[in-house]
Amino acid sequence: MLSDDQDRALGVCYYPEHWPEETWSQDARRMRELGIRFVRIGEFAWSKLEPARADYQFDWLNRAIDILHAQGLSVVLGTPTATPPKWLVDEMPDMLGVDADGQIRKFGSRRHYSFSHTGYRSQCQRIVSELAKRFGTHPAVVAWQTDNEYGCHNTTLSFSPVDLAAFRNWLARKYQSVDALNKAWGNTFWSMEYGDIDEVELPNLTVTEANPAHRMDYQRFASDMVIEFNRLQVEILRKYSPGRDIVHNFMGRILDFDHFALGNDLDISSWDSYPLGFLEDRSDNSDEWKSRFARTGDPDFQAFHHDLYRATSKGRWWVMEQQPGPVNWAPHNPAPRSGMVRLWSLEALAHGAQTVSYFRWRQAPFAQEQMHSGLLRSDGVEAEGFHEVEKVQKDIRIIKWPAQALSQVAIVFDYTSSWAWEIQPQGKEFDYFRLIFDHYRILRKLGFSIDFISSQTRDLSGYKLVIVPGLFAWTPQLRQALVQFDGEILIGPRSGSKTVNFSIPDQLPPDLPTEILDLKVSRVESLRSDCPVKTRHGKFRFWREHVIAGPETKVEFATSDGSPALVRQNNITYLCGWPDGHLLQSALNGLAEAAGLKTRRLPDGVRLRRSGDLTFVFNYGDCDFDASGLELGECRLGGTQIPPSGVSVFESG
Amino acid sequence: MLSDDQDRALGVCYYPEHWPEETWSQDARRMRELGIRFVRIGEFAWSKLEPARADYQFDWLNRAIDILHAQGLSVVLGTPTATPPKWLVDEMPDMLGVDADGQIRKFGSRRHYSFSHTGYRSQCQRIVSELAKRFGTHPAVVAWQTDNEYGCHNTTLSFSPVDLAAFRNWLARKYQSVDALNKAWGNTFWSMEYGDIDEVELPNLTVTEANPAHRMDYQRFASDMVIEFNRLQVEILRKYSPGRDIVHNFMGRILDFDHFALGNDLDISSWDSYPLGFLEDRSDNSDEWKSRFARTGDPDFQAFHHDLYRATSKGRWWVMEQQPGPVNWAPHNPAPRSGMVRLWSLEALAHGAQTVSYFRWRQAPFAQEQMHSGLLRSDGVEAEGFHEVEKVQKDIRIIKWPAQALSQVAIVFDYTSSWAWEIQPQGKEFDYFRLIFDHYRILRKLGFSIDFISSQTRDLSGYKLVIVPGLFAWTPQLRQALVQFDGEILIGPRSGSKTVNFSIPDQLPPDLPTEILDLKVSRVESLRSDCPVKTRHGKFRFWREHVIAGPETKVEFATSDGSPALVRQNNITYLCGWPDGHLLQSALNGLAEAAGLKTRRLPDGVRLRRSGDLTFVFNYGDCDFDASGLELGECRLGGTQIPPSGVSVFESG
Amino acid sequence: MLSDDQDRALGVCYYPEHWPEETWSQDARRMRELGIRFVRIGEFAWSKLEPARADYQFDWLNRAIDILHAQGLSVVLGTPTATPPKWLVDEMPDMLGVDADGQIRKFGSRRHYSFSHTGYRSQCQRIVSELAKRFGTHPAVVAWQTDNEYGCHNTTLSFSPVDLAAFRNWLARKYQSVDALNKAWGNTFWSMEYGDIDEVELPNLTVTEANPAHRMDYQRFASDMVIEFNRLQVEILRKYSPGRDIVHNFMGRILDFDHFALGNDLDISSWDSYPLGFLEDRSDNSDEWKSRFARTGDPDFQAFHHDLYRATSKGRWWVMEQQPGPVNWAPHNPAPRSGMVRLWSLEALAHGAQTVSYFRWRQAPFAQEQMHSGLLRSDGVEAEGFHEVEKVQKDIRIIKWPAQALSQVAIVFDYTSSWAWEIQPQGKEFDYFRLIFDHYRILRKLGFSIDFISSQTRDLSGYKLVIVPGLFAWTPQLRQALVQFDGEILIGPRSGSKTVNFSIPDQLPPDLPTEILDLKVSRVESLRSDCPVKTRHGKFRFWREHVIAGPETKVEFATSDGSPALVRQNNITYLCGWPDGHLLQSALNGLAEAAGLKTRRLPDGVRLRRSGDLTFVFNYGDCDFDASGLELGECRLGGTQIPPSGVSVFESG
Repeated sequence: MLSDDQDRALGVCYYPEHWPEETWSQDARRMRELGIRFVRIGEFAWSKLEPARADYQFDWLNRAIDILHAQGLSVVLGTPTATPPKWLVDEMPDMLGVDADGQIRKFGSRRHYSFSHTGYRSQCQRIVSELAKRFGTHPAVVAWQTDNEYGCHNTTLSFSPVDLAAFRNWLARKYQSVDALNKAWGNTFWSMEYGDIDEVELPNLTVTEANPAHRMDYQRFASDMVIEFNRLQVEILRKYSPGRDIVHNFMGRILDFDHFALGNDLDISSWDSYPLGFLEDRSDNSDEWKSRFARTGDPDFQAFHHDLYRATSKGRWWVMEQQPGPVNWAPHNPAPRSGMVRLWSLEALAHGAQTVSYFRWRQAPFAQEQMHSGLLRSDGVEAEGFHEVEKVQKDIRIIKWPAQALSQVAIVFDYTSSWAWEIQPQGKEFDYFRLIFDHYRILRKLGFSIDFISSQTRDLSGYKLVIVPGLFAWTPQLRQALVQFDGEILIGPRSGSKTVNFSIPDQLPPDLPTEILDLKVSRVESLRSDCPVKTRHGKFRFWREHVIAGPETKVEFATSDGSPALVRQNNITYLCGWPDGHLLQSALNGLAEAAGLKTRRLPDGVRLRRSGDLTFVFNYGDCDFDASGLELGECRLGGTQIPPSGVSVFESG
Repeated sequence: MLSDDQDRALGVCYYPEHWPEETWSQDARRMRELGIRFVRIGEFAWSKLEPARADYQFDWLNRAIDILHAQGLSVVLGTPTATPPKWLVDEMPDMLGVDADGQIRKFGSRRHYSFSHTGYRSQCQRIVSELAKRFGTHPAVVAWQTDNEYGCHNTTLSFSPVDLAAFRNWLARKYQSVDALNKAWGNTFWSMEYGDIDEVELPNLTVTEANPAHRMDYQRFASDMVIEFNRLQVEILRKYSPGRDIVHNFMGRILDFDHFALGNDLDISSWDSYPLGFLEDRSDNSDEWKSRFARTGDPDFQAFHHDLYRATSKGRWWVMEQQPGPVNWAPHNPAPRSGMVRLWSLEALAHGAQTVSYFRWRQAPFAQEQMHSGLLRSDGVEAEGFHEVEKVQKDIRIIKWPAQALSQVAIVFDYTSSWAWEIQPQGKEFDYFRLIFDHYRILRKLGFSIDFISSQTRDLSGYKLVIVPGLFAWTPQLRQALVQFDGEILIGPRSGSKTVNFSIPDQLPPDLPTEILDLKVSRVESLRSDCPVKTRHGKFRFWREHVIAGPETKVEFATSDGSPALVRQNNITYLCGWPDGHLLQSALNGLAEAAGLKTRRLPDGVRLRRSGDLTFVFNYGDCDFDASGLELGECRLGGTQIPPSGVSVFESG
Repeated sequence: MLSDDQDRALGVCYYPEHWPEETWSQDARRMRELGIRFVRIGEFAWSKLEPARADYQFDWLNRAIDILHAQGLSVVLGTPTATPPKWLVDEMPDMLGVDADGQIRKFGSRRHYSFSHTGYRSQCQRIVSELAKRFGTHPAVVAWQTDNEYGCHNTTLSFSPVDLAAFRNWLARKYQSVDALNKAWGNTFWSMEYGDIDEVELPNLTVTEANPAHRMDYQRFASDMVIEFNRLQVEILRKYSPGRDIVHNFMGRILDFDHFALGNDLDISSWDSYPLGFLEDRSDNSDEWKSRFARTGDPDFQAFHHDLYRATSKGRWWVMEQQPGPVNWAPHNPAPRSGMVRLWSLEALAHGAQTVSYFRWRQAPFAQEQMHSGLLRSDGVEAEGFHEVEKVQKDIRIIKWPAQALSQVAIVFDYTSSWAWEIQPQGKEFDYFRLIFDHYRILRKLGFSIDFISSQTRDLSGYKLVIVPGLFAWTPQLRQALVQFDGEILIGPRSGSKTVNFSIPDQLPPDLPTEILDLKVSRVESLRSDCPVKTRHGKFRFWREHVIAGPETKVEFATSDGSPALVRQNNITYLCGWPDGHLLQSALNGLAEAAGLKTRRLPDGVRLRRSGDLTFVFNYGDCDFDASGLELGECRLGGTQIPPSGVSVFESG
């Protein structure tokens, strides 16, 4: 295990079951020589570990672990529950998920199960118990990974009869009576009233849109099922494998279960960072932007998730799978620009990752991911990424890693809000991730390092500036924290626009007491992208609000059609629409000044990360960046002239 | 009720079941104060009226009606059959519709039923009978609305086993023998012959396209089912609620059942006018156009439907739901420009609406439409639309409304044709509504007021100019009317191109006797939008016909490749393709001259409506319009300088 | 039958069952007068031939054949198995195919059957036997067409339970044991191992992508089912109709079964050539290109298929259905430019077609294809195409048709490769047909005539230059042929990149021995279309490879980022990416020079076909082409100044 949080390590994902046993020792030796400390194994190996019911074949895994151990490597052992074997699926075919169109999602790839299936949960408990009993105290085993990439391939929500039964149970526990449910959902509308909770249907395949409150509860239920599913494994692992860390590997821009809730049960959050695949597949940016950063990844996407997953398990986090070369699953799969694997690795470490682990050791020549690069080519020769990892290994030793500390700026990130605006976007561009990401990018452009905090946060006092865009509904905790906070707060657009039951608040959004913010959102508009609303400092796009600002407030500036755009009351500022970059930069500049924070103006491709006394500079751009004007202190790595893909580290006095 | 057709009134849609009973009186009072005369209620309240089988709970509705009555308000009572309650669906789940992909369309929103289901029809008869017996002679109840927005959410066509059985019955009645069916459809083609009518399948999910004759009959059947479904309610209401008007609220650009046939059974046609939602969701126009009119709606779309639904029930018509602010269901939902709610209201009244009724009184804070504006905000405060309605109320009293009269120009509108070209577009842009709308827009640009007439029309004699574009097949009535008419007629493109059995006519299109029109369409082409065909006066786009024009005809002008473009024989002119605006304007200018009609040239955003001695001018544009050049007479409302969103009324000498 | 391969004839497709019997004689007479020699009939007439089980109604067909015979016409008789009648489908509804989404593909159009259904196969054997016994020795019947357009409408792959059972049988025959299957597919990946071959599922509807090896075997199975299905008919026809040719009519750009394998069982390959429909529907070209050639068709698409299907049955081939005017099935259906029907006909004949047969004789006024032109209009009057066929008839007699001969340039065409890159494109533009077509077009632009050869080819010695782009996996035959060949060879991109089991070769692509080509593909990238990679001579787009070129090779030129772009070793050249036109032209120019071949530079719209001593010039362009600079010899048809749609023939000294 890592000695303390100033330690940094490298890892790799390895599949001994894919290779002849005689090659394992050499692999282990080469890993050690590369400076790898952690090896994740086993997470897809169920059919090799139990080829038929109760026919446990654990010896090969034991030998593999021993071989790794012999080289001084530590093992992160994966539970294999993301890939139930065929014999198990054939025993209980109703464990398969069903998509929103009613199609059974068949065996033949991975994640072919519904989280709510109690039979499958029992089987997972069984195999995890067996593995934990056998390997839980092996000296090489220092951590467990539960399952793999929960929610990937749209698997959080499933619409099977089994899910329906579980949903009805969940509703019965939540509402106790059908009258309470009907009232909470507003089922009097369109005669949607149920006579019994067991009459409730799944909210898919309705004639027109289903009740948003119905969908929201289905989303909450589905998220809860993931949390429960994971917790069953955690409990077993804690029992049989004491003292080991429990990790899960989250994904990029998957929002359909509450990662804070799941992260609470883990010791370490981790995520799988594929900068190029994500740029192609999960970015809202224009083609021009994608073309520009095609071989580097979006300059903010990785950092965003680093900062997010640093929050979900209270600070300890890893990159479990780091892209080492071209991948296979995006519409286009270019190679990283030379130096980017190193940059991505150092960036993760700068954001506080304890470990960066590469996926995978050696490219598999067969099956679905045969075009996914590894550190080695499929013929065992070192691939380009291998040599970058060698450099990272050296860099790690040069840098004196600082202890974790809070950033000056925080953004509230709330999974419920992302569900809400997916259920009811009102304008087709209104996506929560996109809104938060827009804020994140501009804050970074201004030079800030950022923390994400959950909507359950009770205390904001460590921060100078807190941003709350697009919050579905206030939690009592956050509302209280707001009152007590004396730093700068930016709220809106659309924050507090709903009650927890997905209704409009009685006193209208933003649903705050007048003494906090004397403002009502009287009317909202969603805007075509070719119909933005102008202000003196930029535009609202996609969304704007007509607000009535009370006497306690000051309208900082208005839209060109005369409606308040930015409204301030004491330390709280409300933003009345979805800002473009220019408007957001203006607003944040003003807030930063009020908060006593210094801002910078970074080019699109250059980003900073402040950590203790160190400031890391990362150049995603395609020309040299001269960092001397930033006055960041003594250069400890790289130089002040930072080439494309370059990383420099500065230490302030 | 309205005393005569020169009377004009306002209404509102109200949902007492959504609000505490103690608020009803205040609501009623405020409605009266606003000048509301009609209140539509009850159309989605089945689960409140009958929460369990035969458990009739009508008292609350009675109290609500009494409260409205006490304020002098009249009630339009809706039958609740668009929202069957869950207990009823659970009793007979096969009442649910099935979409073209074979998916059952589940409970959880609205319109979850198939029109052909006899069990559900019986249940509708039962609840309507109960309601009609209880409220049919209540003095406040002056009209009934049957169901709500038939066909909305693609519900006209359903593909369930129940529908198949009903379709076979319908076919048996129509064809009497399978041989007749096989012959009519041309089933010898591709060995599609059936041995028995009970072998006929639904025309969905075939390997490649189904027989167009098969699809056409399925479409006719589906339309008939809607008519039958509605008629069952009409019969009950006429019996138990004598002297009351029967209304249905149609939608914009829904064409999949025959609104003329349904309108025949009503006293009043009405429609639900959502100018901004329809622009975003149901317009063929470019993004540039949509951006330009994003806050006003398309300048012709509302008028089009006003004129259409004025025809479907022989002149009496309403707007049942008028958009009062942003809606919730389009891809983008901007707010109307200030003044537009008033403009839309006055425009409807100018086109002959007896009543404009706003949807809804107060914004509901819960369920699917919580983001849909009302005249009041959800907290009960007046919303922007409220104040515009106050102005409309004043305007109504100023204007001396003329009696209905025929326009000088008529367009034949035929639902069958819209089905035909959806089934067999031949070129992907060939949409009937789009074709008719193109003609309508240019006629309006030339300053005309327009009537729509059905293809069953027997007499054209009231008109100077009649337009028949894209008519699927001649009816005997229309063919006869054509012969007798001595005004100007414009036919084509594609008119008369099929027999009623969806075959090419023996003598080829346009299927008219030589003495009427000595012309044959020898070959047609559908054109890429980047491959128009030029003429001296503009272009054919999407569609052009190669015609052989006989000696009785005169080719007015030809295409650049030498084929006739516009052909004339006596008072009949044939247009050999889909005209762009320039070509159509030329053709119509010529015809207008021949018909002795004066044309104007209006800008895109300005439209006229002539009604008796009055001419209304509506300014959808974004700059002032100077109407003085139009010489419309004395100004009775507004002024000759008409600002954006302005309405002026002139009276000619 | 055709006397020898220098004979050329015309044919037509005719449906006597669509027309009154009294018109047949006149039709036959007019066909003869037009110079038609072959009439294809009967291929969709099952319901007329057997309206109920075993109720054979062959007399009408006999009379029709006799009438044609009486005019000296020869008959190609179609087996009616593409359109099983309703009574048969009702007897065994599980014969219907199921699409990849699990939807049953219902009766109501055509091709409603699964190739693997043994019951349906028996029924086909029965009806074909009956027909062959009755008509097999009729003197007019000179050929049979099996079924119609196998694979059209995505019918090769079906996903029904019947198909699953057949697939498992096929796998059992192929692999003998489940261990062999698991190993071949690499099922250890993601625990996809099966315990028994009867546990294998169909590769559709998996949670994420299925194993590519699984999909590849399903595709091979599906292709085999088509071959087997066809062979059953061939065997019967050979038995009962000795000495008659057996033909099938393939389609354009349908690649999902192996046409070489199927063509092996035929005497004559034929295809259905719809230049305008294919341009609209099956072209990768830009809208600008489509607009430019909207009325001519793509200048290379027809020739491509002529050359391809010349190869599939060893040289004898026809056009079975030639577009004679606008069709009905593309997004837009314009009319051919005047002269194009003649040009297309002569082009087919120049490429070696023994017969060009027009579809159809007379336009049908009913059912699905009523908007599809014929040589006659539906009213029996000659359509535009009729008159062009009259000219073709004259041209045929003027030209002295040469014997077939090999071209100087060959392209390896491999159906398996097309499946491979559809299953695993890695970059979304990587389509095999597109890649081959790009090469074909540039070769044609350089003036070459081209042969396609299969990947089973054992001998390349007749060629000067052989091109092997995008080959999935080497066959032993082709690898051997390569070694023995001393002409120029161009390989790549992506050739030899997989083993037959869809794995990466042990020694990496291109999987050739060092003495042949000392080069390894170390890494590949798929590229956004806005991120091409430059070289001195043009760009790689979509795909580029980083290769390690050994000492035996010479790097001809490199990319701008310093990686080999074109590598040469002896007579073998490797192309390291998907070339744009400029790069490909450079590479091919160099190879042509090395091979001693002369190149030309033709405009986009002008193409040559060399056949014996004749060179045909076809002008698809929109301006005159002056052929004098080409020095093609004496003009035998047309002139050196070739107008749009013109054809000239030159004879070299």
